[in-house]
Amino acid sequence: MSDQPMLRNLKEGDAFQGFLLAQEAAYKISAKGSEYLELKLSDASGDLKAFLWDVRAVEGDMEAVRADAFLRVKGSATSYNGRLQLKLDKVRFATDAEVGDLSHFFPVSARPAVAMLAELDALVGSIQDPWIRSLLTALFVEDADLRAAFAQAPAAKAMHHAWLGGLLEHTLSVAGMAERACAHYGQVNRDLVMAGVLLHDLGKTAELSYARSFGYTDAGNLLGHIALEAEWISRAAGCIPDFPEELRLQILHIVLSHHGRLEFGSPVLPKTPEALLVHYLDDLDGKLEAMFRAQGEEGGGAWSPFNRTLDRMVYRTRWPKAGSVQN
Amino acid sequence: MSDQPMLRNLKEGDAFQGFLLAQEAAYKISAKGSEYLELKLSDASGDLKAFLWDVRAVEGDMEAVRADAFLRVKGSATSYNGRLQLKLDKVRFATDAEVGDLSHFFPVSARPAVAMLAELDALVGSIQDPWIRSLLTALFVEDADLRAAFAQAPAAKAMHHAWLGGLLEHTLSVAGMAERACAHYGQVNRDLVMAGVLLHDLGKTAELSYARSFGYTDAGNLLGHIALEAEWISRAAGCIPDFPEELRLQILHIVLSHHGRLEFGSPVLPKTPEALLVHYLDDLDGKLEAMFRAQGEEGGGAWSPFNRTLDRMVYRTRWPKAGSVQN
Amino acid sequence: MSDQPMLRNLKEGDAFQGFLLAQEAAYKISAKGSEYLELKLSDASGDLKAFLWDVRAVEGDMEAVRADAFLRVKGSATSYNGRLQLKLDKVRFATDAEVGDLSHFFPVSARPAVAMLAELDALVGSIQDPWIRSLLTALFVEDADLRAAFAQAPAAKAMHHAWLGGLLEHTLSVAGMAERACAHYGQVNRDLVMAGVLLHDLGKTAELSYARSFGYTDAGNLLGHIALEAEWISRAAGCIPDFPEELRLQILHIVLSHHGRLEFGSPVLPKTPEALLVHYLDDLDGKLEAMFRAQGEEGGGAWSPFNRTLDRMVYRTRWPKAGSVQN
Amino acid sequence: MSDQPMLRNLKEGDAFQGFLLAQEAAYKISAKGSEYLELKLSDASGDLKAFLWDVRAVEGDMEAVRADAFLRVKGSATSYNGRLQLKLDKVRFATDAEVGDLSHFFPVSARPAVAMLAELDALVGSIQDPWIRSLLTALFVEDADLRAAFAQAPAAKAMHHAWLGGLLEHTLSVAGMAERACAHYGQVNRDLVMAGVLLHDLGKTAELSYARSFGYTDAGNLLGHIALEAEWISRAAGCIPDFPEELRLQILHIVLSHHGRLEFGSPVLPKTPEALLVHYLDDLDGKLEAMFRAQGEEGGGAWSPFNRTLDRMVYRTRWPKAGSVQN
Amino acid sequence: MSDQPMLRNLKEGDAFQGFLLAQEAAYKISAKGSEYLELKLSDASGDLKAFLWDVRAVEGDMEAVRADAFLRVKGSATSYNGRLQLKLDKVRFATDAEVGDLSHFFPVSARPAVAMLAELDALVGSIQDPWIRSLLTALFVEDADLRAAFAQAPAAKAMHHAWLGGLLEHTLSVAGMAERACAHYGQVNRDLVMAGVLLHDLGKTAELSYARSFGYTDAGNLLGHIALEAEWISRAAGCIPDFPEELRLQILHIVLSHHGRLEFGSPVLPKTPEALLVHYLDDLDGKLEAMFRAQGEEGGGAWSPFNRTLDRMVYRTRWPKAGSVQN
Amino acid sequence: MSDQPMLRNLKEGDAFQGFLLAQEAAYKISAKGSEYLELKLSDASGDLKAFLWDVRAVEGDMEAVRADAFLRVKGSATSYNGRLQLKLDKVRFATDAEVGDLSHFFPVSARPAVAMLAELDALVGSIQDPWIRSLLTALFVEDADLRAAFAQAPAAKAMHHAWLGGLLEHTLSVAGMAERACAHYGQVNRDLVMAGVLLHDLGKTAELSYARSFGYTDAGNLLGHIALEAEWISRAAGCIPDFPEELRLQILHIVLSHHGRLEFGSPVLPKTPEALLVHYLDDLDGKLEAMFRAQGEEGGGAWSPFNRTLDRMVYRTRWPKAGSVQN
Repeated sequence: MSDQPMLRNLKEGDAFQGFLLAQEAAYKISAKGSEYLELKLSDASGDLKAFLWDVRAVEGDMEAVRADAFLRVKGSATSYNGRLQLKLDKVRFATDAEVGDLSHFFPVSARPAVAMLAELDALVGSIQDPWIRSLLTALFVEDADLRAAFAQAPAAKAMHHAWLGGLLEHTLSVAGMAERACAHYGQVNRDLVMAGVLLHDLGKTAELSYARSFGYTDAGNLLGHIALEAEWISRAAGCIPDFPEELRLQILHIVLSHHGRLEFGSPVLPKTPEALLVHYLDDLDGKLEAMFRAQGEEGGGAWSPFNRTLDRMVYRTRWPKAGSVQN
Repeated sequence: MSDQPMLRNLKEGDAFQGFLLAQEAAYKISAKGSEYLELKLSDASGDLKAFLWDVRAVEGDMEAVRADAFLRVKGSATSYNGRLQLKLDKVRFATDAEVGDLSHFFPVSARPAVAMLAELDALVGSIQDPWIRSLLTALFVEDADLRAAFAQAPAAKAMHHAWLGGLLEHTLSVAGMAERACAHYGQVNRDLVMAGVLLHDLGKTAELSYARSFGYTDAGNLLGHIALEAEWISRAAGCIPDFPEELRLQILHIVLSHHGRLEFGSPVLPKTPEALLVHYLDDLDGKLEAMFRAQGEEGGGAWSPFNRTLDRMVYRTRWPKAGSVQN
Repeated sequence: MSDQPMLRNLKEGDAFQGFLLAQEAAYKISAKGSEYLELKLSDASGDLKAFLWDVRAVEGDMEAVRADAFLRVKGSATSYNGRLQLKLDKVRFATDAEVGDLSHFFPVSARPAVAMLAELDALVGSIQDPWIRSLLTALFVEDADLRAAFAQAPAAKAMHHAWLGGLLEHTLSVAGMAERACAHYGQVNRDLVMAGVLLHDLGKTAELSYARSFGYTDAGNLLGHIALEAEWISRAAGCIPDFPEELRLQILHIVLSHHGRLEFGSPVLPKTPEALLVHYLDDLDGKLEAMFRAQGEEGGGAWSPFNRTLDRMVYRTRWPKAGSVQN
Repeated sequence: MSDQPMLRNLKEGDAFQGFLLAQEAAYKISAKGSEYLELKLSDASGDLKAFLWDVRAVEGDMEAVRADAFLRVKGSATSYNGRLQLKLDKVRFATDAEVGDLSHFFPVSARPAVAMLAELDALVGSIQDPWIRSLLTALFVEDADLRAAFAQAPAAKAMHHAWLGGLLEHTLSVAGMAERACAHYGQVNRDLVMAGVLLHDLGKTAELSYARSFGYTDAGNLLGHIALEAEWISRAAGCIPDFPEELRLQILHIVLSHHGRLEFGSPVLPKTPEALLVHYLDDLDGKLEAMFRAQGEEGGGAWSPFNRTLDRMVYRTRWPKAGSVQN
Repeated sequence: MSDQPMLRNLKEGDAFQGFLLAQEAAYKISAKGSEYLELKLSDASGDLKAFLWDVRAVEGDMEAVRADAFLRVKGSATSYNGRLQLKLDKVRFATDAEVGDLSHFFPVSARPAVAMLAELDALVGSIQDPWIRSLLTALFVEDADLRAAFAQAPAAKAMHHAWLGGLLEHTLSVAGMAERACAHYGQVNRDLVMAGVLLHDLGKTAELSYARSFGYTDAGNLLGHIALEAEWISRAAGCIPDFPEELRLQILHIVLSHHGRLEFGSPVLPKTPEALLVHYLDDLDGKLEAMFRAQGEEGGGAWSPFNRTLDRMVYRTRWPKAGSVQN
Repeated sequence: MSDQPMLRNLKEGDAFQGFLLAQEAAYKISAKGSEYLELKLSDASGDLKAFLWDVRAVEGDMEAVRADAFLRVKGSATSYNGRLQLKLDKVRFATDAEVGDLSHFFPVSARPAVAMLAELDALVGSIQDPWIRSLLTALFVEDADLRAAFAQAPAAKAMHHAWLGGLLEHTLSVAGMAERACAHYGQVNRDLVMAGVLLHDLGKTAELSYARSFGYTDAGNLLGHIALEAEWISRAAGCIPDFPEELRLQILHIVLSHHGRLEFGSPVLPKTPEALLVHYLDDLDGKLEAMFRAQGEEGGGAWSPFNRTLDRMVYRTRWPKAGSVQN
């Protein structure tokens, strides 16, 4: 699959054969009464509208050709009203096994998963408090499925770090900042802060769906990541004999309160210095990432387009300006 | 203990001997430099300031004489600036075993616990869905400690149903109303609604402290009753083999969302008819109870004093007015 | 008129002749400088764009052919860019008398008006308080125009029960629920509650325009339905000799406060149990109806599209799932 | 009565005999078990605590001696903890007829009622539109009770113009400003604006109680002044044959919307220039009066105490400073 | 340039040659791989899409042909899908000198700048306080650049008075109203109010960009007009020997607080009568202008389209209705 | 003065002679008609009520004996209702010169001013950007008065760091944290961040009055510290030849936006990464300090009293608990 062209590089008239992800899929009736299939197909480089005018050319189960399915398609690039489209000759459902590496279809963190997991392990290993280290080890090291999901999930559907690996990348960035903050504010319990940082968004592995287009799972919509990770932490702590109840409360408190305000979905306010610190550093990291991204986006001039995550435009002019001479 | 006089009935000059609950307790220094003990002591009928002018008369551990302790005191009623006080001669810490029935010290539901528990059992028994019935049985019937706490806890520190047994009384009232609502709105799943109603405030047994003056526990302040009961439900469901994940999500969703809005401490909004219904009926029952209580309070005229729970005054004039003739 | 085809059933090439409602109408200038008429025409089954290329084919007063007018049109169905249109040959204004039954053009309640009016009469007849019964009789039984409007109006422009007859359907649903609530909360005055329920949205008969596309009347926009019905109640009470002022105040209070919060358009907060109850049951009924409708809409999967009335998506998966086996 | 001393001028040891208004009144039990009467008595100059130690000295109906009653008392001024009190020997209920001029007991507008009513009449007479003039004449000239109440009521319980005659004083001030604004913004209908100004707070004559301590009536609390005056306007318009419905809507709209925002108790927003103008000028006049009053209050320095009406402190230093020399 | 046709008057087939303002400009790739230039070009009468299919026909620096540039174009009017377009043959960048009077390209105040400046000068001359007059003279009379900008800037990007000269027009309207208000409220310092009015939006000359399409400058987005004018006032006051600090504080306070609430961008609340008055009159003038404009807009019936500035629809029916007979 | 006793150490009967700060001062009339002076006097250890019963014992100007004055008093400690008071024999106004070191009368930072100023100088010296270094040098090094005030002012009246030297202590703490944050987020301009941090609260030196009881100055109440420091920065930048306008805008933007939200008094939102970072670190530092202080306050148990700055109670139990054994 790795040698199929990226959609962004297609030109009118090019033939195309390969795997694509269906963002949208609908069987429609033309004005002449015949059924056709209208798709929006994507890879990591972008997306195109696609049409299969004769639905009898769908191989296999027509119902399997739907949004969020990987499809094997064959066709060619055409132009309509100045926009490139795909005119399809064949379409069939494709299995995950055929498709292979998801990073061909989604934006991916700039940091390799292996390096990030090594950094995670080092952080877990650095914890002095034996109870906290046990808890983190159980969740991040010993639970292989959770560890794999933690390395692959995005940090959000759209707000910040919305790419594969973004959850771990964001978590490690907050952890790095937290390490520095604990050195500065010596009164806080560094191990407790680090536990809070590493756990604060863990539930997003189950809140978000990201094997296809990014979205929310049923559990994500019904419970939210905070309730999900709270449950996991309690369960893991319950499996460690004599895990101190006081510690369990303090860790859960950090996690439950990390959105900082009730109207942002935290059922309690941060009431310990550690909880307060985790809230601020998490919030800061997400907002800064959104701001750096807005500065780096293509197009526009001194000001980014209106940014929904930040609810404002971002000023892109940097000081000192490139090429300015300072004496 | 049951034959000691209620504080409300004391007159100046009466001797008093018996058990009282310390609402406040502080060792203070008089202007002359001697240490004395100042207390606020209560039973179910009210409270009085009390003074022990010679702290050497404290029997046993002085540190045990503090707020929220039951004390055995001996002294007499005196008057100062027109207010009755207790002048104490002896004070000592009392054990729970000595003290006996808490209802001597706290306001108590008008409904007997036995009758309320029978109604609870009948509700659990009325559930048709076997999974839901199993879950409720595990929590309300088989867990004796939880059952006992559920029958004794108040529903709130001050907002509504703030008396011993108030939690169960409120829960059953919502359940009764829910039964009627499910008959009216036939599309909702009655068993699911009933599960949501019975479970929605269960965590208050651990959120509130009520063996002494009503307040919040550490867990209550750090996690809140919603997170507490969510954990218990998941744990109980986990002990029932093959408990359906879909059902667990729907029940947890009702519980997590029952405050109706994020700023009221629900991390998610109600997204099913059952969750919406439980939210409205819970809110309505608490508000109506507060309104009935405001109408019934002594003093004032056509309007209650400003009511903090309702953020308004309540109109007490009833239609038809008592004694009015209608033809 | 009843034998004209519904728009939904038209196919390309079909001829069409009949009455349609103009949702939009505009005389435009083509790029070639000639005037044409562009319309959006509807019946209860849907709407289509329509074009009359030669405006001389308009019979009678051209100015009468405008939005919200019933038109008599003749033409045929054509297709443009895959969408069906009507190419018109003739257009003229139609009188209400020609058009006949409005239910051919608008969504209509599933409950027959006759049955709903009988239920309304039974409710009025069930009132024990003679003053309240007189008042309700004056408004709902003796005022034939108001009674007819009450049976035909929708409950809202778009939020909930937005169909002909929806106002009465919603009112009766709240009344049914109120009957049950009064049985549960014995302290409330059932007759007062029922008066509040039946009257709470009566002003919508003048607030909303629904003989054409649903919208707001001038009076609706300038005064709102609460002020309108308050005026009607006072006027009706004024025609009943010796109507008790205390009762008039209590009924008006329920009506004025039934939106529950100032920011939702109630000039006062509910300050009696009856007013509080009417507010909750009204709000609940509207929200539940919106939720049931969101669950029943076509398309989508486990989640409804974002619902503006509820400001959230609705979860459509029902427990137990259809076809699931429970033992 | 006019020769009784003002409370502010009493000195310890002075005898007192005369009429006073009871702000508070309670029969209490002393620590020794005997009943006494505790009062807070006021005239326009201030208030004092008062005690009648032998309740048998109450003449007539003891129940009539309550808050908001005028009382005839006899006693002497004593001192307790540095505060002056009244020690009473006799107390009885007094009739309004005995008491006479209310202005002895309440703060009163600096403008004489006669002059203000003349200004009101001139304004009504200046209206060109015959319908509007008829309506205002009916309410302000022909309805003698309403006219009298309009001249005597305060404009608010505490926020601004909280003195007898304050309602008319505030109304005329807004009218004067409105006259100027209409000259400036020539597009607005001056007669409509003036009608809105004169009517906007008319309902306060029934919303507020001011024959005793300022407060809210039952109708005021249950309906609010906006609903009250809307009813009166409609009733008065209904008595004028052929009163134009369009005009009635526009006047009612100004009145209903004059608080400017739903959360301030207006059920609709101002949607005409006239309604917008009345809202701004009413709001401005009340806020400016509160600010002038805060600047003029005794005590403090450059800043007023925190002002609840304005939710801020007010800066009292005026430019140019008194005595400053400007060249 | 003055003899080139306005865009609104172009007909299909007309040739066009002249200067236009580029609202948007983008070099695009057609489906066939060739580059073309797509523009949106405007003058004061409206705008049109325009296409240059052969980019080699751009004279001079292609990069200078971008949004907000004045261009010299040659081409003809064509039609596509019923919309008029410009098909261009030649495009080049135009200098400001060539273009001449900006009023050909932007909406302009109905009041001539000369007359408005004369009114401004009269207002400055009417100030009795010598310090205030000096300050206003320095800014409005002696600073020729600022005076010129003040006469040309719009009052807002879109909210109200959004046309060339709108800033001065709005300022003078508020000043006229303020003159009347100071006559009414004799306690306020008229010179201080007038200073506040004239200065309150002065910073908009630097906050807004209006030599091209209206927008915000970098300084406008980063600092806002309030901070800008505060700086200018302080600098100007600093150039007047012995300018009283008390007066500087009071003027700055009016300017800083004139948005009336923190959430509207004022860092402090109005705390003097003068500041309060300027806030209300400024707000009123902007809102009334928006309302008059909404009433006057073409199209629609009794109600304006939803107006974003006012967050509501505006009622257009005027009382008395044109042609209505009043007796 | 340094050998006078601290008020906290006074015992009943002790004589006292020395300087004290008047928190409150009022001439009152006793019930017997004689004038006396009632004071609240303080030093850094606490405050006491004080009475001078014969006002003729005031030496010199009686009017100078008022709140916020330093007084020289002579008298003795007495007891009233169990509270210690000062019974005064002599009182006179004291000059600042007599009083000497303010730290005897106010809470003071734990860090010596000399050390903090050295750290400030090092930070200024560490700036690489020559323009920024010049600006900071002008304000913090060369302006001796501002430097002295910066070292002595508190950071707030009550919220956080409310002690002498608290402003510099808070600023340096934020700077230390900012240094670490810039190391972590390499994309931000460290010099710009550091300028923002050092300048963000500089205006508090003029906003707050702290030579006496902490409060707000007139300028502080009228303009706020943000407007004050913005003015100073612009003035200082104006004195540096060719100071880049772009840089001035970016620094002012950080300062103006550092409260993060309009409703918290920032007229603009942070729109650069540097501004965002300064806002978060400033907010975090103040909140953490308040939390640490709440944990350290005397009295109470596991929970602090309700904390107004944080709008919540703070959990004081630390993990690991003191004395707990961890293996």
